[in-house]
Amino acid sequence: MVEFFGGVDRIFSASLTELESAGIPAVAAQSIATGKSRELAQESMVRASAQCICLVPMDDPAFPTPLRQIYDPPLLLYVRGDAAVICQASIAVVGTRHPTPYGLGMAERLSADLASHGLTIISGLARGVDSAAHRGALAGKGKTIAVFGTGVDVIYPKENQRLADQILTTGGALISEFPLSTFAAPQNFPIRNRIISGISIGVLVIEAGEYSGTRITSRCALEQNRELFAVPGNVTNRNSWGPNTLIKQGAKLTATWEDVWEELPEDIRLTLAQPVSESEPPTTASLFQSEQGSPHEKRILRLLKKDEVTHIDTLVERLEPELSSSEIFAALFELELNGKIRQLPGKNFVKSF
Amino acid sequence: MVEFFGGVDRIFSASLTELESAGIPAVAAQSIATGKSRELAQESMVRASAQCICLVPMDDPAFPTPLRQIYDPPLLLYVRGDAAVICQASIAVVGTRHPTPYGLGMAERLSADLASHGLTIISGLARGVDSAAHRGALAGKGKTIAVFGTGVDVIYPKENQRLADQILTTGGALISEFPLSTFAAPQNFPIRNRIISGISIGVLVIEAGEYSGTRITSRCALEQNRELFAVPGNVTNRNSWGPNTLIKQGAKLTATWEDVWEELPEDIRLTLAQPVSESEPPTTASLFQSEQGSPHEKRILRLLKKDEVTHIDTLVERLEPELSSSEIFAALFELELNGKIRQLPGKNFVKSF
Repeated sequence: MVEFFGGVDRIFSASLTELESAGIPAVAAQSIATGKSRELAQESMVRASAQCICLVPMDDPAFPTPLRQIYDPPLLLYVRGDAAVICQASIAVVGTRHPTPYGLGMAERLSADLASHGLTIISGLARGVDSAAHRGALAGKGKTIAVFGTGVDVIYPKENQRLADQILTTGGALISEFPLSTFAAPQNFPIRNRIISGISIGVLVIEAGEYSGTRITSRCALEQNRELFAVPGNVTNRNSWGPNTLIKQGAKLTATWEDVWEELPEDIRLTLAQPVSESEPPTTASLFQSEQGSPHEKRILRLLKKDEVTHIDTLVERLEPELSSSEIFAALFELELNGKIRQLPGKNFVKSF
Repeated sequence: MVEFFGGVDRIFSASLTELESAGIPAVAAQSIATGKSRELAQESMVRASAQCICLVPMDDPAFPTPLRQIYDPPLLLYVRGDAAVICQASIAVVGTRHPTPYGLGMAERLSADLASHGLTIISGLARGVDSAAHRGALAGKGKTIAVFGTGVDVIYPKENQRLADQILTTGGALISEFPLSTFAAPQNFPIRNRIISGISIGVLVIEAGEYSGTRITSRCALEQNRELFAVPGNVTNRNSWGPNTLIKQGAKLTATWEDVWEELPEDIRLTLAQPVSESEPPTTASLFQSEQGSPHEKRILRLLKKDEVTHIDTLVERLEPELSSSEIFAALFELELNGKIRQLPGKNFVKSF
């Protein structure tokens, strides 16, 4: 339409006949010709500005360049939060909504490490890997952007309200191409996925089964000529099917943040070279860090795994009678405080990454 | 020497002066000129034939062609068992001596599947992945060859005596370039590794830490222009370092036997196309087979994992009070009989692959 009429303004001043000759549906032509569309647009702008939501159209310099270059860029992005962040170098971190502890841990660890080195982490705020990616970015004191399949004023899933707030308060953004108040509809999420990959330099896939939205994002990434990264996993884990298959097809096998870093264009690496927080060096823990702490803590750490939960009863059973229950609880508490282990629902424990 | 004198016979009939002018050490020249070497060689041949051990020199048509083509082929192979099997199409399956249950299971599963499709499985009879590879080949009713770092009459480690016997009775072979009675010496195992890769079409690496003999075999495979295959694994497992790194460097990611099969040269695939045992179709189980059996068995199967052991006490604890201990034991027994689970030392159980 813009090409046909030679500018957005001309569309809105065109007559019904002109609009119909442009080949758009009659209802749309009428809505534009009667001024209804313009009215709705203005209402949207008023609503958006009342909620401090930016509207960034495709031809705005503030629109992310990589996203403008994809085959089907969104005409307009609604941005809640820092609109400047959407033009920063970013990596998408995506995966299944039902990850294993291994997938969750890897999503958080890699996102934290990449974010602490200045890369913005893009994901979709979904349950599972997406949420872990956003949380990891926050833990790495970096920035993160959630791309919504709903209006930016509709948090989905609701349980991620707090996470969305944290994204905003730490200088990140929530973005969407869907109008305000658009509710969660299944068909919108795959459409949204092309923005996740389109706005990013590359897409890192953590865990994804054979049939998952992550496959759509990966396909978009390939079509958009984005670098694909994937974290390998045991082939006996259904969730490893996605990343392992992508690696077979040429995605870069990713074990640590350096595997992503090495593939970044030189100029981007140079602008990012300083860790975000210069006072605290980035906490790029080795995957195989040495065990420290009290003898009780060490014994517990040796029993816990990074990619499998261990139930409290199993711990007690294995450690008794040498350790009393209260000694075990005290040591677990200490380990959790120091971030060496994590408690998952149902009194299950895993070693931190 | 053979090139210098124009034949093996001429070496043994050469004078001391001629031998010294060939540039070999004085002691060796003397041993040959005095006839001592020839005597020792004849003694070796008598001993070998008394034990039904074949001597296959490099220029013998029964010497494996791929092995003859490497940079430093052994001059002579001692072969116990079926000497014909050493010329059949084969794949080396190698890895750490300290595998996880995942590595053990994958070694057995992939070796069984490949062997049942007619590929001979080559390995080194070491503890861990090597032994699992040989066992897998036997389970797949295929053939397997153990390449020794000792004389072929010296079984190392001793605990594998029975496995070595089984390799021989099922039409496989034990081979070595080291003279009879050569005892286990650390420096000989890396030397042996070039034969493991050299005799094979490709090398499949299952689990291997950062510092392991498997790295030597992989390097040999690359130098010898052999196809490299590697089974990916969770990056939190130290033993996945080897295969994951090889995949990064270009090894083919291998999740099922088909991943190896697809890379075989067309002519070899055609000769192998029939499963070894035509009456029994190869038992290429899906990694994600559906659970069958009694309700008790199903409940137990759901608790067990393929890549992590579960202790009997944990099973009892989780299943009580719905199932009595004796019901659990009975179901475990049944599952083990049917090959659906395996018992590992210390009353630990894993799901079979």
